[in-house]
Amino acid sequence: MEFSWAQKLGAEAVGTALLLAIVIGSGVMGDRLSPDDGVALLGNTLSTGAGLVVLIMMFGVISGAHFNPAVTAAFWAKGDISTRLALAYVVVQIVGALIGVWIAHLMFDLPIMQVSIKGRDGIGQISGEAVATFALVLTILQLVRHRPDAVPYAVGLIITAGYWFTSSTSFANPAVTIARVWSDTFAGIAPGSAPFFILGQGLGTAAAFLMHTALAPKGPPIVDQ
Amino acid sequence: MEFSWAQKLGAEAVGTALLLAIVIGSGVMGDRLSPDDGVALLGNTLSTGAGLVVLIMMFGVISGAHFNPAVTAAFWAKGDISTRLALAYVVVQIVGALIGVWIAHLMFDLPIMQVSIKGRDGIGQISGEAVATFALVLTILQLVRHRPDAVPYAVGLIITAGYWFTSSTSFANPAVTIARVWSDTFAGIAPGSAPFFILGQGLGTAAAFLMHTALAPKGPPIVDQ
Amino acid sequence: MEFSWAQKLGAEAVGTALLLAIVIGSGVMGDRLSPDDGVALLGNTLSTGAGLVVLIMMFGVISGAHFNPAVTAAFWAKGDISTRLALAYVVVQIVGALIGVWIAHLMFDLPIMQVSIKGRDGIGQISGEAVATFALVLTILQLVRHRPDAVPYAVGLIITAGYWFTSSTSFANPAVTIARVWSDTFAGIAPGSAPFFILGQGLGTAAAFLMHTALAPKGPPIVDQ
Amino acid sequence: MEFSWAQKLGAEAVGTALLLAIVIGSGVMGDRLSPDDGVALLGNTLSTGAGLVVLIMMFGVISGAHFNPAVTAAFWAKGDISTRLALAYVVVQIVGALIGVWIAHLMFDLPIMQVSIKGRDGIGQISGEAVATFALVLTILQLVRHRPDAVPYAVGLIITAGYWFTSSTSFANPAVTIARVWSDTFAGIAPGSAPFFILGQGLGTAAAFLMHTALAPKGPPIVDQ
Repeated sequence: MEFSWAQKLGAEAVGTALLLAIVIGSGVMGDRLSPDDGVALLGNTLSTGAGLVVLIMMFGVISGAHFNPAVTAAFWAKGDISTRLALAYVVVQIVGALIGVWIAHLMFDLPIMQVSIKGRDGIGQISGEAVATFALVLTILQLVRHRPDAVPYAVGLIITAGYWFTSSTSFANPAVTIARVWSDTFAGIAPGSAPFFILGQGLGTAAAFLMHTALAPKGPPIVDQ
Repeated sequence: MEFSWAQKLGAEAVGTALLLAIVIGSGVMGDRLSPDDGVALLGNTLSTGAGLVVLIMMFGVISGAHFNPAVTAAFWAKGDISTRLALAYVVVQIVGALIGVWIAHLMFDLPIMQVSIKGRDGIGQISGEAVATFALVLTILQLVRHRPDAVPYAVGLIITAGYWFTSSTSFANPAVTIARVWSDTFAGIAPGSAPFFILGQGLGTAAAFLMHTALAPKGPPIVDQ
Repeated sequence: MEFSWAQKLGAEAVGTALLLAIVIGSGVMGDRLSPDDGVALLGNTLSTGAGLVVLIMMFGVISGAHFNPAVTAAFWAKGDISTRLALAYVVVQIVGALIGVWIAHLMFDLPIMQVSIKGRDGIGQISGEAVATFALVLTILQLVRHRPDAVPYAVGLIITAGYWFTSSTSFANPAVTIARVWSDTFAGIAPGSAPFFILGQGLGTAAAFLMHTALAPKGPPIVDQ
Repeated sequence: MEFSWAQKLGAEAVGTALLLAIVIGSGVMGDRLSPDDGVALLGNTLSTGAGLVVLIMMFGVISGAHFNPAVTAAFWAKGDISTRLALAYVVVQIVGALIGVWIAHLMFDLPIMQVSIKGRDGIGQISGEAVATFALVLTILQLVRHRPDAVPYAVGLIITAGYWFTSSTSFANPAVTIARVWSDTFAGIAPGSAPFFILGQGLGTAAAFLMHTALAPKGPPIVDQ
């Protein structure tokens, strides 16, 4: 079973667009429905975690369902994806993410073009992004090595956990970070905070890659795709 | 293992009836228990998502567990179900859905016959239904092609996500839409809004079918039922 | 792999005791922590649904993990369990359930012996129990026939749905009903209401058995244990 | 496929550190976002349950993913792990847990070194820990015997249930208990309460081991790793 570049890039674009529509849309819904920010985050979490599982199941066989330049970078570092395809993935992930934000705004009758004013700053949040991205990328790398069928569930669950346990609510994804700049809603991030988030994500990705390498088994792996 | 038409139609009717009893009943429960609409929607979401997984597991082997004219239409367009059986499915889905609404009203000591006055209008909500139905139908078509065992989980999860990320709370089902007209409760929809919801659902179904066709693999699929 | 009667009855007793400790304990916790009854029911639901999945996985291979006279009755009607063992199951289920209630009271520093004054009355709640038990028993019978590995997940999910979509919050279990009489907490039920709940549960069990019989496939089933 | 001692101990340390970052971090997040303690516990529960599933999937094949001296003790009692390795596990679990607490404090801009003043006392909470640890350890022992692939899900689910049904919110882990002394946040525990929690955990572990032994099948087990 083979898929063309157009199909792979289409899957990455549509998947990332739906991911952002979910992240932004469920944030708006929670914010509108409840005066309690904890309840809003519960809805945002449930929707994102559940949606991610499905998006990865739908598109994983086609493109790998990265939806995330940090994940694409990790697979590129492992040699599992060519440099040219990896760069193309990153471009369509960012474009798809922006389209997803706009779809969310359309659905909620909001102005399509917005810029967030929600500052997310400080060492705490940057280290939060590093921890979140470390956890996400290590999850993916370890599961692809040892338990590939469970990858969709594991990614949905680690993001579910991350929305609550990291101070930054686990963006853990540079394309998502760039796109969330363009939404002045519950899930937005001010332009000035975004570069620090992406810095934290880079550190977390590198740490996960090193850890994954250190945990390589000596004999042949049970499963390795 | 074979099932008769009567068994298939019975499974569609009972499954759709239970689905509506779940959608309406959990909406009433949330509305009664909590002053916070976000908490009410969390309960409504958990109950609907969890219930859907089980209904599809129970009846999937018998009728395919469509419970939804949009899904039946997509399988008919693929040539997986005859025109006559598809039409019969749609009829029993609508009848089952109405009976499910009445069961919910009976359980909660409400007047059996009601008509909703809850307007759900605007471009936002119509595009919400289009996105929700696109996501639901594409999930089903892609998973049946690539990962059929996970269909029940995936459908429950995409509806869990959809209740929060779409402005319309993801009806994504014409039979459900028609039935929810007949309930003046948390999950109801005014008669005048229903046709626009069904229009959005039709657009989403068509888009999902086209996308699914465009994503067909070149070689033989890993799994195809 | 074989298990003795003592092991089977022990599994039923310990499993039903833990089930009731979960149902009552999480009800008390929710009631204490939140002023919002919807939030309390969310916690009660999550805990019960999650706990049930695990209890059935732990004890299913030993005793079948019925924990419920309605389920035992359905398997007895199918001829899958002898009359003597079925009666012994029902006795230990009731005894185990009572012990579970007392464990919950002990954990929460409440008087061990209590009687509920929480009336749960009316046609609505009785029909709620009938629908809840119909859904639970049909789930178990259909899944044992077609998808036995998923039984633990399906039971946890249908109870998760039932806590919200039925007006009675899905007791769906005569042993649980009897035991909950002995707890004047969130999850209790007044003695005068219990017989009507058990009546509804009996009707639901009978309906599920008939439906399951009507849905028997013509050819050999795909899976039948 | 083989892993070195360094890899096993690294997996235990990193896994337990992430577990504590999740437990403490999501407690802080809930406490900050919501005025309703029930909502805070829901977020804390979701994050811990979801995170545990993933941590066990990531590291289970390497170290067994104990993250818990009670679990290590049970496997040592079964003869599945040598005394020396078991002692080393306990040391790195405690060290990892402390580091995890500090990571959580770093992420949330809190003073790194803290001591809890949250007393968790009384027979109720001690018996709560005994029940919680009994349930957790019995779950692991029974599932490893009969359904090893589901261990990650079962552990996440039993802790999800335990956060709500036990009066102590299911620490069920001596390393976690020691580490939570060092956090004056939602999930902390005062130093004077910790020994009683650990006493309850010891009793629960012993009871689970005895119960597991009593439930050994007569014939060869279906699965036994």
